[in-house]
Amino acid sequence: MAAPRNPPEQALTAEPVAGNGLLDRRLFLTQSFILAGAGSLPAVAGDSTAPLTFPEWMTRPGAPLSGYGSPSRQELGVVRTTLSTPLSPAIGASSTPLESLQGRITPNGLHFERHHSGIPDIDPAHHALKIHGDVARPLAFSMNDLLRYPMTSGFYFLECSGNGFLNLTEKPIDGTCGALNGLISCSEWTGVKLSVLLEEAGIDPEATWLIAEGADGASLVRSIPLAKAMDDVLIALFQNGERIRPEQGYPMRLFVPGWEGNLSVKWLHRLKVSRQPAQSRSETATYTDLMPDGRAEQFTFTMGVKSVITHPSGKMMLPEPGTYEITGIAWSGHGAIAGVQVSADGGASWADAALDEPVLPKCVCRFHIPWRWSGQPATLMSRAIDDQGNVQPARAEFRQRYGQSNMYHFNGVLAWAVAADGRVSNVYA
Amino acid sequence: MAAPRNPPEQALTAEPVAGNGLLDRRLFLTQSFILAGAGSLPAVAGDSTAPLTFPEWMTRPGAPLSGYGSPSRQELGVVRTTLSTPLSPAIGASSTPLESLQGRITPNGLHFERHHSGIPDIDPAHHALKIHGDVARPLAFSMNDLLRYPMTSGFYFLECSGNGFLNLTEKPIDGTCGALNGLISCSEWTGVKLSVLLEEAGIDPEATWLIAEGADGASLVRSIPLAKAMDDVLIALFQNGERIRPEQGYPMRLFVPGWEGNLSVKWLHRLKVSRQPAQSRSETATYTDLMPDGRAEQFTFTMGVKSVITHPSGKMMLPEPGTYEITGIAWSGHGAIAGVQVSADGGASWADAALDEPVLPKCVCRFHIPWRWSGQPATLMSRAIDDQGNVQPARAEFRQRYGQSNMYHFNGVLAWAVAADGRVSNVYA
Repeated sequence: MAAPRNPPEQALTAEPVAGNGLLDRRLFLTQSFILAGAGSLPAVAGDSTAPLTFPEWMTRPGAPLSGYGSPSRQELGVVRTTLSTPLSPAIGASSTPLESLQGRITPNGLHFERHHSGIPDIDPAHHALKIHGDVARPLAFSMNDLLRYPMTSGFYFLECSGNGFLNLTEKPIDGTCGALNGLISCSEWTGVKLSVLLEEAGIDPEATWLIAEGADGASLVRSIPLAKAMDDVLIALFQNGERIRPEQGYPMRLFVPGWEGNLSVKWLHRLKVSRQPAQSRSETATYTDLMPDGRAEQFTFTMGVKSVITHPSGKMMLPEPGTYEITGIAWSGHGAIAGVQVSADGGASWADAALDEPVLPKCVCRFHIPWRWSGQPATLMSRAIDDQGNVQPARAEFRQRYGQSNMYHFNGVLAWAVAADGRVSNVYA
Repeated sequence: MAAPRNPPEQALTAEPVAGNGLLDRRLFLTQSFILAGAGSLPAVAGDSTAPLTFPEWMTRPGAPLSGYGSPSRQELGVVRTTLSTPLSPAIGASSTPLESLQGRITPNGLHFERHHSGIPDIDPAHHALKIHGDVARPLAFSMNDLLRYPMTSGFYFLECSGNGFLNLTEKPIDGTCGALNGLISCSEWTGVKLSVLLEEAGIDPEATWLIAEGADGASLVRSIPLAKAMDDVLIALFQNGERIRPEQGYPMRLFVPGWEGNLSVKWLHRLKVSRQPAQSRSETATYTDLMPDGRAEQFTFTMGVKSVITHPSGKMMLPEPGTYEITGIAWSGHGAIAGVQVSADGGASWADAALDEPVLPKCVCRFHIPWRWSGQPATLMSRAIDDQGNVQPARAEFRQRYGQSNMYHFNGVLAWAVAADGRVSNVYA
């Protein structure tokens, strides 16, 4: 280990703060140490100004400018995992490869998808948003109308209410973090505040619901309480700066921060103000939570507090014992993440992770903690707490509440096992 | 105008707050009004649950899931404007189409480019970052080494120091906002704090500079004060969640928040700690600021406080008199934006714009203000102020300081003229 000539102002020891090698989350901020992989530099003399070898790509001009860029061909394997059947390739879901990403934002090309009848190819010149029902004045807005309205932006997660359902099998599936848990993504969403449009239409004081319909082949319909619609809901037109992509609802979608993803109706073309919910197929036959006594909870909108370790995670291989950063994402539909705890000993002891600032409400939060892996088997877990006091439940707690059949809203604590040979796999702990 | 049944709690009048139709920035938050384009709804009966017509795309299943998505084919015109010569297509710049975007984040495909010898096609397995020079221990980091290090993320703008140079012509160029001013973009950048790696190498106490070199055909070299390098500089590996794209420096770039874009050396492969700057071509022959007396200012790192109205902007056409939202972006390399003022009468009077929260330091900030266009000619301008007290200078002030020949660091107030027929064009005001 090198002796740094700039000693840290605050001496933090690299002693574990919890079992099995978890180190203080501030360690990297004040004290550095050589990781096993970083070697000394054999090829460069101390004072040389030229590298001794020139790779081929330094010897000639490279590729020209372009109108719209793409990832490196070296990263072509970083794609969404799709889940559908050969009989209906347009119906299914694709999940964000969380294990390959960093930070909080999901690039638009990798945002998860969930389609009930595929992606319609909408011509925006022939698409309008209609507001009708219990209103003083039914209205229709063309795309050009909406683009003249004031816009507002927010950094928000979007999560399918079925995210994590593959963790409800009897035995754990050996999959990547994204394939098992990646129906969650995070973007800057920009659009028109729905409250502005609803006030223009003039809501009947007796109305309490808003019924949203998409212009896809499935005509997805969901009902949303008007109080939420008047709060922070957007008619979203832009995602991470550019116009929403086809698989995210081009030319417009509803965006309902913190709530089940299916409420953020894509390809939105109709909003009906009503005194009752629609009791549509998507809020009766599906998207209800089956309870142990056979009844189902309906209109369970808010996505619970949750976290997942993205690195190390399923199907990765740690090359050797040594220091690693454990990192992952946490989120809550109730508000902002207040803390994330990490365990390296299967939940016997926990340590606080560092959170990337700013921590925003209803947004993905990135957490980090250094970890020294001894080379012995270890079980890594994370547990999130939000600023409304909600705590991510243990797997058993979730199972006890919902029984064996509900496939929505799973937010139990997740675990990755690290074997002695460095292989990481999904386990139920 | 409809009479909303839910009257606003706070009655804001729609009276102008500054000349030529600027309205209170809070207006849309508390009081809505029908825009000219939003028509009443002829085709839908008040209580109907079905639309009267089904567009073709609702009558059949749509497109299937995919591994990596793309924008709608309807948006193929939203691309970067490239500026190069047929003789050297790999040398030049491409600018972000600011007029087509919203929010703060730039999608990765539309981030501006500036290449001195095109985009190298780097194999990350044969790329390393070397740290050498006045250090106790020269180090080399492979990609796999770096990916084990702790990561940190920040939302930052990146601006070419030449951004806006097309506004320094004698007569204003009739161009779009992006073509004239779009060498500015904003992303969530994630990577390893450079200070962690420099402390591992052990910096000689007498060293004051860091010399960064890129592995492109031009071997771009820039010198950066060590104090900045130890502060907030990143070895950036991820942009908006995914690995940095080739045109942004794949597999790694330096990222120097708030400073000239060319310091954020792409395709980074070498950092030399030194007691002197390199006096490289890119900090002597170029990237210096030519002053009126013929001398040049060197190492003018920080990008000044600046703003630009993105809508309405150059080459747009306002369809009719009525209410519009004026919106744009502001940023400062010195810190966070504290305020943006907008004028609709060529600078005779100014009103405060609303800023999207959170306002982050060294990050793009989105501003908004409603405007009622009378149909008469108008000149729109914006002026930003940062939290360090810096004020965006008038065009004449900038010209007085730098004379006629400097082409870098232009941050003078910009103006768009709206003609009586609604056409918007670039003007010097």
